[in-house]
Amino acid sequence: MRRTTEFLFDQDTRLDPEGEGAFSAQITDLWNTAAGSPNGGYLMALCVRALSNGPAHPDPLVASAFFLRPASPGAARIRTETVRAGRRTRTGEARMRQDGKEIVRVVATFADFDRTEGRTLCLDPMPVLRPPEELIDPLAGFDLPGITVADRVEYRTGQPPGWLLGRPGGDPSMTFWMRFTDGREPDLLSLPFLADAACPVIMELGELPSATVELTLHLRARPAPGWLACRVNTRHVSGGFHEEDCDIWDSRGSLVAQSRQLAMLHGAG
Amino acid sequence: MRRTTEFLFDQDTRLDPEGEGAFSAQITDLWNTAAGSPNGGYLMALCVRALSNGPAHPDPLVASAFFLRPASPGAARIRTETVRAGRRTRTGEARMRQDGKEIVRVVATFADFDRTEGRTLCLDPMPVLRPPEELIDPLAGFDLPGITVADRVEYRTGQPPGWLLGRPGGDPSMTFWMRFTDGREPDLLSLPFLADAACPVIMELGELPSATVELTLHLRARPAPGWLACRVNTRHVSGGFHEEDCDIWDSRGSLVAQSRQLAMLHGAG
Repeated sequence: MRRTTEFLFDQDTRLDPEGEGAFSAQITDLWNTAAGSPNGGYLMALCVRALSNGPAHPDPLVASAFFLRPASPGAARIRTETVRAGRRTRTGEARMRQDGKEIVRVVATFADFDRTEGRTLCLDPMPVLRPPEELIDPLAGFDLPGITVADRVEYRTGQPPGWLLGRPGGDPSMTFWMRFTDGREPDLLSLPFLADAACPVIMELGELPSATVELTLHLRARPAPGWLACRVNTRHVSGGFHEEDCDIWDSRGSLVAQSRQLAMLHGAG
Repeated sequence: MRRTTEFLFDQDTRLDPEGEGAFSAQITDLWNTAAGSPNGGYLMALCVRALSNGPAHPDPLVASAFFLRPASPGAARIRTETVRAGRRTRTGEARMRQDGKEIVRVVATFADFDRTEGRTLCLDPMPVLRPPEELIDPLAGFDLPGITVADRVEYRTGQPPGWLLGRPGGDPSMTFWMRFTDGREPDLLSLPFLADAACPVIMELGELPSATVELTLHLRARPAPGWLACRVNTRHVSGGFHEEDCDIWDSRGSLVAQSRQLAMLHGAG
């Protein structure tokens, strides 16, 4: 398995192999969202890590996670299956269970980013953001009891989101910088968590945080160290369901990930 | 099973139940792409249809398909599994095999759109397009030998795409109307096909059609009869991989689907 470092993300995504593609994990309470349960991206990151241990194709390229039931801090078991191992890519499936019930199912395709070839073209450059040191921590001074995931990442933006000030602004979009608070650098295995750790822009519509049904993440390049520039937005709410797109660029201005999730508004469905 | 109608899509997505959640299907050669193999959305539609036959939750809400190997016209077998059946949603997995090899794996969540509740808000209205009768059929007069899928759908747009005229325009985006040529109306079960039947905008960059690795489709509402308004675009090509987003509105202006796929350029990887 990958080395355990001093960083919390690595400690809390440690996997103990149990043979035949199965792993045990300890989900901690340090990644809880407003719903009082562990962040979906944290669970997805555990599953993607479990799938990353092939002989080749170490780099996640695309992953889709279906969130079936809320997780709880405590023991979890992840069973993995190789779906197809080809020359250029490898696809696997991971099922995370707690107390015998399936919590998350992830299918993911891996590649080797050192061996991918082909053109790169960006028709949508990273958002224009002032340097992080000229911006504010939007959560500074706010008490978010129980939302432990807010202690794991920090943000820099021009102003706090309206909902945090009690005045939702009506525009469910946001651009900001993000990084781990403990200095861990971003990498392909932490992007599934980071892509789901963005501020919930739906709250700008006066809604409570919604529940993710499915999240698909495209990984595009290994991120450079430093802050990540993020743009999150929702364009359509339909019968209580909405998408949330998150594009992430690294400190060198390269697009490193695109995520899209389908989520259900609190009280809808 | 659903009724077989006089329409080709329904004939060619007919499923014969074999018990225990398994179905046999006959993939025809009437949905072939430029790669000479059946369109991925057609295969995805077969899998989604196989999963749709639950006692409740008839409507696909979100589906993710991983394309593992090219399919061939001929017999296929789809094995389905109920992952979780809850009150508001049901999630299932389908695996399509040909000659014992897995071709496509689909995970999908279903809901009942008659029973979903919650607000609807559109912050991104449908593209401004002149009425279909004032536009042209961009494929009229072009011979696309072997690309049988081009006979299944028809498009209306302002002008043919540059690549078709031998002059790729450099902008991988397009807005157009789309419908089945035989008069079949769109519905939730045909949208997985239609979302993948859009013109391959990557060809505007001078590329050959690319191979889809994964496609996620969000279904938002049952489409009204008539033409579908589509907007397709690619914003990022990274090391030979690119996303392609497709938003689809119905003839009444309601968003009915959003798809995003990760695809590999021809010759890349």
